Amino acid sequence: MDKIVKNIKIKKLIKTYKNNNKLFFVEGIMEFKMAIKGNYIPNKILICKDIFDNYNIIKSFNSIIIFISLNIFQKLVYRKNSGGIIGIFQKLILKTIQNIIPPKNSLIVILDGIEKPGNLGAILRTADSAGVNFIICCNLQTSIFNTNVIRCSLGSVFTQQIMIEDKKLILDWLKQHNIEIVSTSTNLKSTNLYDTYFASSSSLAIVLGSENKGLSNDWLKKSNKIIKIPMFGFIDSLNVSNVFSIIIYEIIRRKKYII
Amino acid sequence: MDKIVKNIKIKKLIKTYKNNNKLFFVEGIMEFKMAIKGNYIPNKILICKDIFDNYNIIKSFNSIIIFISLNIFQKLVYRKNSGGIIGIFQKLILKTIQNIIPPKNSLIVILDGIEKPGNLGAILRTADSAGVNFIICCNLQTSIFNTNVIRCSLGSVFTQQIMIEDKKLILDWLKQHNIEIVSTSTNLKSTNLYDTYFASSSSLAIVLGSENKGLSNDWLKKSNKIIKIPMFGFIDSLNVSNVFSIIIYEIIRRKKYII
Repeated sequence: MDKIVKNIKIKKLIKTYKNNNKLFFVEGIMEFKMAIKGNYIPNKILICKDIFDNYNIIKSFNSIIIFISLNIFQKLVYRKNSGGIIGIFQKLILKTIQNIIPPKNSLIVILDGIEKPGNLGAILRTADSAGVNFIICCNLQTSIFNTNVIRCSLGSVFTQQIMIEDKKLILDWLKQHNIEIVSTSTNLKSTNLYDTYFASSSSLAIVLGSENKGLSNDWLKKSNKIIKIPMFGFIDSLNVSNVFSIIIYEIIRRKKYII
Repeated sequence: MDKIVKNIKIKKLIKTYKNNNKLFFVEGIMEFKMAIKGNYIPNKILICKDIFDNYNIIKSFNSIIIFISLNIFQKLVYRKNSGGIIGIFQKLILKTIQNIIPPKNSLIVILDGIEKPGNLGAILRTADSAGVNFIICCNLQTSIFNTNVIRCSLGSVFTQQIMIEDKKLILDWLKQHNIEIVSTSTNLKSTNLYDTYFASSSSLAIVLGSENKGLSNDWLKKSNKIIKIPMFGFIDSLNVSNVFSIIIYEIIRRKKYII
């Protein structure tokens, strides 16, 4: 198990892996654990002994472990606090929504045109925390296997039910399953989040648009409710992950904390 | 007013400005307007005519406008959608809290050790929206004039009352003005946000720790309330700007939307 591979060999290996678009890199112990929990299969595991101290989590993968020096490890990772582990995993094929029957009272997030990996990651992190059932993306401008998505979601990108679909297919699916569409818009016709009634028995899909353009009219026209968060300052919009956090937790509050 | 300066001259100018730590760059129309609204004084304004179409906002600054080519503009900005304007502004000296008497029912945010400009910016954006009175930082690991702070706050960094102080001074000031300290922690002793009572008559300071380490014991010991956001997934923490958004909007909801 224990062999220190020469730099040049590692460099070649990494290059080969980075050029293989069926693989992706996972830095960090929490993120590695979440990938395993999400049934992703590691192809290689790079361990830096100077940092790593969590041998329990890799004991069943002895045959694919490669030990690397601190110097190489630091060159490969984006973050200093990566815990001495890099997993090289195989991508899984995402499910399609067509065959999925959402359970009663489902909470769904629909993301149309999200651009920034950090925002997608933060939304996924909050979605995990709030117990969201499905995250459905269309026109996604980043990869869900982007390093920053993985990091900002703390690896919850691996354990959640994420789909990437065409908008039309999503709209058909929402209609078919009688899911209420809740869009966000700061225009005059939208109603204040705190004045909006959400039926406790129905499944809800919260739709969020891109950072720059917000939601398209297609969504607004098909929405059962268009809501806005009350704002009292100079600026006229909030960060998309903050919009999502405020809305989903207001829904959670009503579902779980009102007697 | 209309003169196209040669590349080499602009390059020198920019270099001189970038090395002057009393100046900072502001990209974008919204951000420029917010800097002016916040009484920041522009030293130079760089305009790219191929993009810019908002001459009203710069008409009182004719003498300090420099026109630059699209090519140079694109090299200078971080974002494509910068609206054709870069303001070079003078930094202002931040106020100190020592002389500030907070109004009744103030909402205050205290940030200890925030590292990421994007998080600071998003917190400021939500703070503007929620009508927060003061943002007080200690151990700040970025500059408030960082391009990404400016961008992610949509320029609200310029219009808000922001202070950078020592922790001890902040604690003394909070005590002196009888401000309730509300800290966040995911440990067992903290109470669920939705089970926590906030007196409607008191001023509140919400304290948020660094992205990696959370809040130090110093804060937890001095807190009147330690709260947590209920979490139902695999991961054990949320993005700091999302924590802030969920808490501040729950407080806003109770202050403004409960009859």
